[in-house]
Amino acid sequence: MISLVSMALKADITKDFKKINLHLLDQTLLPQNEKWLQIETIEQMIEAIQSLRVRGAPLIGVAASLYLAKESLNTNNKEQLLKIADLLYEARPTAVNLMNCLDRMKKIIHSNTEMLPQTAINLFNEDVNLCDRIANNGAALIQDGDQILTHCNTGGLATAGIGTALGVIRRAHEQGKKIHVYIDETRPLLQGGRLTAWELQKLNIPCTLITDNMAAHLMSLKKITKTIVGSDRIAANGDFANKIGTYSVAVNCFYHQIPFYVAAPFTTVDSKCKNGDEIPIEQRKPEEVLGAAGNFGQIIWAPVGINVYNPSFDVTPAKLTTGWIMDQNVFTKNDVIKGCFL
Amino acid sequence: MISLVSMALKADITKDFKKINLHLLDQTLLPQNEKWLQIETIEQMIEAIQSLRVRGAPLIGVAASLYLAKESLNTNNKEQLLKIADLLYEARPTAVNLMNCLDRMKKIIHSNTEMLPQTAINLFNEDVNLCDRIANNGAALIQDGDQILTHCNTGGLATAGIGTALGVIRRAHEQGKKIHVYIDETRPLLQGGRLTAWELQKLNIPCTLITDNMAAHLMSLKKITKTIVGSDRIAANGDFANKIGTYSVAVNCFYHQIPFYVAAPFTTVDSKCKNGDEIPIEQRKPEEVLGAAGNFGQIIWAPVGINVYNPSFDVTPAKLTTGWIMDQNVFTKNDVIKGCFL
Repeated sequence: MISLVSMALKADITKDFKKINLHLLDQTLLPQNEKWLQIETIEQMIEAIQSLRVRGAPLIGVAASLYLAKESLNTNNKEQLLKIADLLYEARPTAVNLMNCLDRMKKIIHSNTEMLPQTAINLFNEDVNLCDRIANNGAALIQDGDQILTHCNTGGLATAGIGTALGVIRRAHEQGKKIHVYIDETRPLLQGGRLTAWELQKLNIPCTLITDNMAAHLMSLKKITKTIVGSDRIAANGDFANKIGTYSVAVNCFYHQIPFYVAAPFTTVDSKCKNGDEIPIEQRKPEEVLGAAGNFGQIIWAPVGINVYNPSFDVTPAKLTTGWIMDQNVFTKNDVIKGCFL
Repeated sequence: MISLVSMALKADITKDFKKINLHLLDQTLLPQNEKWLQIETIEQMIEAIQSLRVRGAPLIGVAASLYLAKESLNTNNKEQLLKIADLLYEARPTAVNLMNCLDRMKKIIHSNTEMLPQTAINLFNEDVNLCDRIANNGAALIQDGDQILTHCNTGGLATAGIGTALGVIRRAHEQGKKIHVYIDETRPLLQGGRLTAWELQKLNIPCTLITDNMAAHLMSLKKITKTIVGSDRIAANGDFANKIGTYSVAVNCFYHQIPFYVAAPFTTVDSKCKNGDEIPIEQRKPEEVLGAAGNFGQIIWAPVGINVYNPSFDVTPAKLTTGWIMDQNVFTKNDVIKGCFL
């Protein structure tokens, strides 16, 4: 049995590649309930992605690939597998890792469907390795006494490994650096307040939870020395999409002259996107802004019928970014101008 | 019978000033429940202020004064009345209108306690008038097609009149100007999502609710043409305290070159505060950030035991402010430098 285990994904694969059991931690119920879902159908898999039961740009790419590998145990019909790949491809529009992973899988469908399980396993292991290298590259930037702001969740729940931005923070902590983390709660889906708070608490990393609108105030008090966020898609010019609210943080870091880093694996780069304007931004349902949801169910606090705007992501331009912490290297603005993402 | 009626306060005063009935709309239950509370004791009054059942810098000043007037019907003992005034004075530390109104009332305690009811009535009527003048001064700045961002609640629920920042918006709408309002939900207490959304919906003013972290993204899309907020205290140099999150909006307006106005009556000015550093910032309980509360009760979504920072206000410096929309005038940076708040 080959067992792939991350914080939010478990896959058991028999050595003869005849059976894959895929389980996902339902992140919508965290931190109060730790409920694992067995994924058996394409409908379940897509619903899990769209409802953010599984989330994080790297992890949804890996999870979708493992699901596609599981489907290949039932059929080696290439058209059918390609159709399933396309359904997964369209589950969420902004994170390019999903597309990049599935593109790798689609190539294998065309060449040899029997290689799909091993390819999915490789994608999982590669992501673990990418996280590790990002963490090392980023931790070198962190100093004793740093007070680091982060947004959304970019840790073990968002990747197959230790995370991207949060992986950097974790590695710096493991290296014995004395740091404090400020966590944006990240409305509307509260990935900071529910998930990053939960991860940092488990890791015993000193941290403080704030609402998103407090970050600038903390900066004015000189309580933030660095900001690190993740990304769902990096364009060729270094502009990048990340969870809504990232852009506001970037503008505030620029105004307060605080270094602002994005951490991501090369699988997040979309060199076909010239710049941030070309990144599609997912619009989500109004209920998310009208209230909140969790293990307590769906709460609505806004008046019925009020108009809502709910983009899931925003784009931060390269000019507001101090460095791109990638698995290969920490790239500077100069590297980006010279075409490191082309 | 003299009846004072605003959106969130009702006071019935017999003509012989023998009896005052004071009712407050419990704003913690809005918009789902419209429950009026009869205020009979100092404990009730202070709890209502501290729990934000009654809120808005101008309104808490007026409500506390009416309560003090009510107490004066039971006793004309000056020391006892001054003690009650002091208890009210300390109920919340940031909004100076509370102190300014109570200072007026304390002068009357020293001279003639029988004049307390009439003084409180005057404070109510003055606030209605101040709102009206702010609205007229501010509406002159609004143009057809303006897309106005506002933060927190500064309308009929926050004052005895039509409001400050929201009063400006309402007056512009009444004048037939075609405007659209973007409402910051204003975590953690959701005064935007619960209260401003409710007021604008009642007034049929076109509006869209967003989470606080979306405002900068909207600015980058050129969807915001002006921002107007209220204030809880304006220092002599024009720095001002307002609901947490205001400073982040101000920085983002500065970066995007969007006019950023604060609207407030002269009762919000504290000329004894030299600058924003001298304004005390109220720190509130962690539960507000750990979850949300409303007619549905208290929900907690963050992990138990996580550390929280919860300042109720932040300070926006004068240098980020385009204009101070006051009852007397719209003051510019030059007016402020010349000492209009001294």
